[in-house]
Amino acid sequence: MAASVILPDLATQVLVPVAAAIGIAFAVLQWVLVSKVKVTPERGSAGKDGASEALIEEEEGLNDHNVVLKCAEIQTAISEGATSFLYTEYKYAGAFMAFFAVLIFVFLGSIEGFSTKSQPCHYSVGKNCKPALANAVFSTIAFVLGAVTSLVSGFLGMKIATYANARTTLEARKGVGKAFIVAFRSGAVMGFLLAASGLFVLYLIINLFGLYYGDDWEGLFEAITGYGLGGSSMALFGRVGGGIYTKAADVGADLVGKVERNIPEDDPRNPAVIADNVGDNVGDIAGMGSDLFGSYAESSCAALVVASISSFGINHEFTPMMYPLLISSVGIIACLITTLFATDFFEVKAVDQIEPSLKKQLIISTAVMTIGIALVSWLGLPSTFTIFNFGAQKTVHNWQLFLCVSVGLWAGLVIGFITEYYTSNAYSPVQDVADSCRTGAATNVIFGLALGYKSVIIPIFAIAFSIFLSFSLAAMYGVAVAALGMLSTIATGLAIDAYGPISDNAGGIAEMAGMSHRIRERTDALDAAGNTTAAIGKGFAIGSAALVSLALFGAFVSRAGITSVDVLTPNVFIGLLVGAMLPYWFSAMTMKSVGSAALKMVEEVRRQFNTIPGLMEGTAKPDYATCVKISTDASIKEMVPPGALVMLTPLIVGTIFGVETLSGVLAGALVSGVQIAISASNTGGAWDNAKKYIEAGVSDHAKSLGPKGSDCHKAAVIGDTIGDPLKDTSGPSLNILIKLMAVESLVFAPFFATYGGILFKYI
Amino acid sequence: MAASVILPDLATQVLVPVAAAIGIAFAVLQWVLVSKVKVTPERGSAGKDGASEALIEEEEGLNDHNVVLKCAEIQTAISEGATSFLYTEYKYAGAFMAFFAVLIFVFLGSIEGFSTKSQPCHYSVGKNCKPALANAVFSTIAFVLGAVTSLVSGFLGMKIATYANARTTLEARKGVGKAFIVAFRSGAVMGFLLAASGLFVLYLIINLFGLYYGDDWEGLFEAITGYGLGGSSMALFGRVGGGIYTKAADVGADLVGKVERNIPEDDPRNPAVIADNVGDNVGDIAGMGSDLFGSYAESSCAALVVASISSFGINHEFTPMMYPLLISSVGIIACLITTLFATDFFEVKAVDQIEPSLKKQLIISTAVMTIGIALVSWLGLPSTFTIFNFGAQKTVHNWQLFLCVSVGLWAGLVIGFITEYYTSNAYSPVQDVADSCRTGAATNVIFGLALGYKSVIIPIFAIAFSIFLSFSLAAMYGVAVAALGMLSTIATGLAIDAYGPISDNAGGIAEMAGMSHRIRERTDALDAAGNTTAAIGKGFAIGSAALVSLALFGAFVSRAGITSVDVLTPNVFIGLLVGAMLPYWFSAMTMKSVGSAALKMVEEVRRQFNTIPGLMEGTAKPDYATCVKISTDASIKEMVPPGALVMLTPLIVGTIFGVETLSGVLAGALVSGVQIAISASNTGGAWDNAKKYIEAGVSDHAKSLGPKGSDCHKAAVIGDTIGDPLKDTSGPSLNILIKLMAVESLVFAPFFATYGGILFKYI
Repeated sequence: MAASVILPDLATQVLVPVAAAIGIAFAVLQWVLVSKVKVTPERGSAGKDGASEALIEEEEGLNDHNVVLKCAEIQTAISEGATSFLYTEYKYAGAFMAFFAVLIFVFLGSIEGFSTKSQPCHYSVGKNCKPALANAVFSTIAFVLGAVTSLVSGFLGMKIATYANARTTLEARKGVGKAFIVAFRSGAVMGFLLAASGLFVLYLIINLFGLYYGDDWEGLFEAITGYGLGGSSMALFGRVGGGIYTKAADVGADLVGKVERNIPEDDPRNPAVIADNVGDNVGDIAGMGSDLFGSYAESSCAALVVASISSFGINHEFTPMMYPLLISSVGIIACLITTLFATDFFEVKAVDQIEPSLKKQLIISTAVMTIGIALVSWLGLPSTFTIFNFGAQKTVHNWQLFLCVSVGLWAGLVIGFITEYYTSNAYSPVQDVADSCRTGAATNVIFGLALGYKSVIIPIFAIAFSIFLSFSLAAMYGVAVAALGMLSTIATGLAIDAYGPISDNAGGIAEMAGMSHRIRERTDALDAAGNTTAAIGKGFAIGSAALVSLALFGAFVSRAGITSVDVLTPNVFIGLLVGAMLPYWFSAMTMKSVGSAALKMVEEVRRQFNTIPGLMEGTAKPDYATCVKISTDASIKEMVPPGALVMLTPLIVGTIFGVETLSGVLAGALVSGVQIAISASNTGGAWDNAKKYIEAGVSDHAKSLGPKGSDCHKAAVIGDTIGDPLKDTSGPSLNILIKLMAVESLVFAPFFATYGGILFKYI
Repeated sequence: MAASVILPDLATQVLVPVAAAIGIAFAVLQWVLVSKVKVTPERGSAGKDGASEALIEEEEGLNDHNVVLKCAEIQTAISEGATSFLYTEYKYAGAFMAFFAVLIFVFLGSIEGFSTKSQPCHYSVGKNCKPALANAVFSTIAFVLGAVTSLVSGFLGMKIATYANARTTLEARKGVGKAFIVAFRSGAVMGFLLAASGLFVLYLIINLFGLYYGDDWEGLFEAITGYGLGGSSMALFGRVGGGIYTKAADVGADLVGKVERNIPEDDPRNPAVIADNVGDNVGDIAGMGSDLFGSYAESSCAALVVASISSFGINHEFTPMMYPLLISSVGIIACLITTLFATDFFEVKAVDQIEPSLKKQLIISTAVMTIGIALVSWLGLPSTFTIFNFGAQKTVHNWQLFLCVSVGLWAGLVIGFITEYYTSNAYSPVQDVADSCRTGAATNVIFGLALGYKSVIIPIFAIAFSIFLSFSLAAMYGVAVAALGMLSTIATGLAIDAYGPISDNAGGIAEMAGMSHRIRERTDALDAAGNTTAAIGKGFAIGSAALVSLALFGAFVSRAGITSVDVLTPNVFIGLLVGAMLPYWFSAMTMKSVGSAALKMVEEVRRQFNTIPGLMEGTAKPDYATCVKISTDASIKEMVPPGALVMLTPLIVGTIFGVETLSGVLAGALVSGVQIAISASNTGGAWDNAKKYIEAGVSDHAKSLGPKGSDCHKAAVIGDTIGDPLKDTSGPSLNILIKLMAVESLVFAPFFATYGGILFKYI
């Protein structure tokens, strides 16, 4: 049957794991390169490789030995804090995982009363499929594997980030280019590790589960969806828990340190300063990583489950069936080439080359990947095939799938650049917001909110266009591969994203270690570029979350056997209305969580300032560990209500109101949530950079608003503080809301289809 | 055919206009009672009716004569300002009306190429209906009549409000109860006038158009929908233009007066003070009136157009066909009885009786109206009939319609009370927001936004429940009559709503006229109660807008001949996504409009303070008229972009993408817009009352946050300023967005069904 495909099945079987192995090897290589920077004092360090570079400390006559020791010490504190948070988080995540694994097994196993007999297939007419019990067992295993992969990737990413931060600081003594390379390589470790291990584990379980399922691909790929749910439910902990952690520490540290005690950011006297730096790692690195890993796993699963009931699956064509994995494999190679442009082909020499260099990464990876998609679509697909389209089969050509994947990829780039336009202080929107600080904090907030609302317009049109094209060409499979297209450059995306917090930490370490002002300037330049890429990364994450959710929604609807979701029925419409409300409910919870957790931090920091003698004078050391513990405990506790809302809504709605209402809820949450997520992220990013714009005072306009401490600046600081939870907690957490509800519905679809809607059945 | 209905057609023909006449007569009576308070100095005023009431001025030895003269003078200034704004607004509204009338005529007339020949009916099989040209002509006439009715009602309401404000101030000298009665009666004039004239004109055009249409009820009620569009498009001017006016003046006056010059609110030295007081009248009175009139006209039209293709219309049963008008007729009587409870049966004697008295109005009107609905449903409907349900006919019983109308009515009450809970400072949510001011403006904003998000939950469940019940029982007709149910007590709702700005103005006049502190205390008490009822009124307006939009959406879908709006098609889904984005776009525009207009006001006020010698000392008078003109011009200019977005979107989407995508857009805008509208209104209301809570300092907790001028209070003022555009401009304007797009789609549905979707037809 696969005669029409150029790429033989065996080649596919080899290509996918090899690409994953290359990705992992590349990550290890980057790590080895980073590890060459020593954080132990070296005797005659500058002369070691015969280079004549003079370190800034040597120029300024500072004691190099002590500075390095100090950096190592701070790094250890941050690393220990982050590890302790992740261990605590994983303890709860593990308990949740065990509970939910049982739930999956019981719900799915109960469908045919835990019978071990084979059942007729739903879609492959006249054939027998494996029993529902097998589906329950393998879904559960896939769920656990997805969760563990997510946790391990996040953990390793955080480890390398806390390993690299002090090294970046130390390299900054040699020059901004050297520091940039260290930070970027470390980001790349995280990016490639996550992309490659996600792909590898997925490939592995498809082959292992295949040993049992044999011909029953319908059942096989239904069980595989558990992988997406596992990855995504850990993202709940990473994004929501991590988001609360990072902002509780940040807001708490600022409210007492900057506002009450008037000491600068990252001052070592502030008891919450280590917690703040830990927060960057657990929130922005581990959180963002788990979010994007979840998106990646989910879009792959959504594509596979639709493919399994399309001609690929029905005719057992292995290579076309693996098309989503082939896209990701090529993506790793494309990103690898792209990375070389930042680390080897060109060199960053001056501060103003950092941001262009990072932006070039996005453009290069997109361009290279477009060629990769064309290759895979030509080699890996038959020229014509059919795709399942809600009860019917739709004829699709291979070039149409190329368009679907590409439109997702390029839409991601458009969203990235629009996000940059609205959040970078190089352009007029942020400058207007900064200008509005003249009349006080109130106008700053009004203009900032309006900016966020406005920044939604073009990204939504870009997403709508991608959806329209891919949906029209290849139904929900098209949407799923469009999402995969957007995520195909995930390794590069994560690399430049993780680069941000590493630079941020590097700056913090320079400040805390009492290093030269000139080093702090260099790390600040790295950090400023990181702020913009962080905003771009968030835009990316939201855009892909929207596509992924729709793909999952489509897969759910297909699995639940629904052929239309008609707004003109009361069940669906109220679902839509209530679904559109959920992001507000969820945001209210996460925003209040940050507020409560920050308040606890404020009390502890105040207590330490009041009770530890000599703290303000710098003669006594604060108790960093207690602050880390407070942030850890508060974030775990505070994530329970929003987590419960996300996890319980699909179960309750599906069981009580049935699949039609649940479809409405998913669609409503999706179309409403994506708007709040984009506007909250961009509003927060704009306020942050408006403040930085006034502080930096580069242009005449900026100077007229400053300096630090002026009324304008104070108004800008208020905006920045409001924006913190919006851009780092409530906004990005909405990605999880819309994706997780959709993938959970997908996994439980067979249960809902059988037992759901008890309200309408029995009343 | 109508044998099964108890109420004869002739009785219906009499009952409706008589109810309207009673409403108008009652309004006139209230006006006569208000006019008995004289704003000309009366010689021996206290002794005139032999009463022994001593005026506060007399007690305190102030010159009564001068105070009255001063009040009259200020009243004239406010009245002239408001009139001048409305005239300017009407000039533009008139031009818009003329243009749009032509558009309606051309679009609808073109459907059958302006042919004058009769055509086969769409729904009454085998019968001939009037030509599309007739539909075009009569729709256009109905549009103009709807617009004119809205304008006249708004104008008269504004007139009575500016007539009553000084009278309320003067009556406050005699006691809080007397002042309350004047303010409330004046509100009632507005409420009854609007409800009764809306009903009367609708009744009139149905009968007049009927002379031409004869048996063709399908065409008749299709043409009647123009009435809803007319009413609603004037609401665009009232709500959006008025909303920009009032907040530009308010924010502008505060930013210079309170912040820069440190003079109190409503100080006569502030050049923008008259504009600010004018704003209360044009925004909160004329704007709210036109909004609710639009809702009323639209829900009636939506119900009628669905009824015309149900058994009522097909069998030409006049009384059941008039069921929506009968509901409104009974509503006028129920509200009349309710009003007597506030003005005659009980008397407000102390300050703490004001708010309970107003809240009782809501409860009494709801209870009385429930009986009224039962009566009308029993007398005016056959026990069984069929309702058009997207291509099919659904069998419905009269008691089911009773439930539909009642659930809307009671949902309105629930929304009202939840709104009160979240915006009144008598409860913990607002007190928590006030408490968060301890850590500054940033936490105040975060907590306020979270409160707004949270306040969405229960109203959405209430709306969803109403929709579910009414939709399940009687399809879109059920939803339309549920909306009518919520609006059936519109006369009472508007009375207590208009009461607020009148009391607000009364307080302003007392301050400007330099009246005694004790009078200001009384008017402040009236105003505080008015703030809460204003928030309740907004909740009501949004809730009814949601139901009305859905009803219009249903009517549109029915008229466009669509039988399902399937989210699982790309056309519909992208519509949904982009539709959900529109409220953000629209809000960004209106918020920026307020900002720009306020900035112009700030400049003018600053200019006057700087150039008019003796202004700050009170020896020279400011130039009020220029400020009024600035607000007027800015609001008219700034409402063009949001207005264009609302008016053009349905035309562009319908023409280019077709009715399916337009359906998606309408549904998306509805489910997303209602959330932002509720949260924006409640956030703003909560900030306002958190500030008032600190200022009033009634409890120990409130005292610990105050007094005026403390850091906490300053943080609260920032929140209040941010909330102003949210609660009075961008939030309530969204009602117009969702309703107007829906009714416009309905009117143009025949055109879109014939010529729409050119993109998919020709590409």
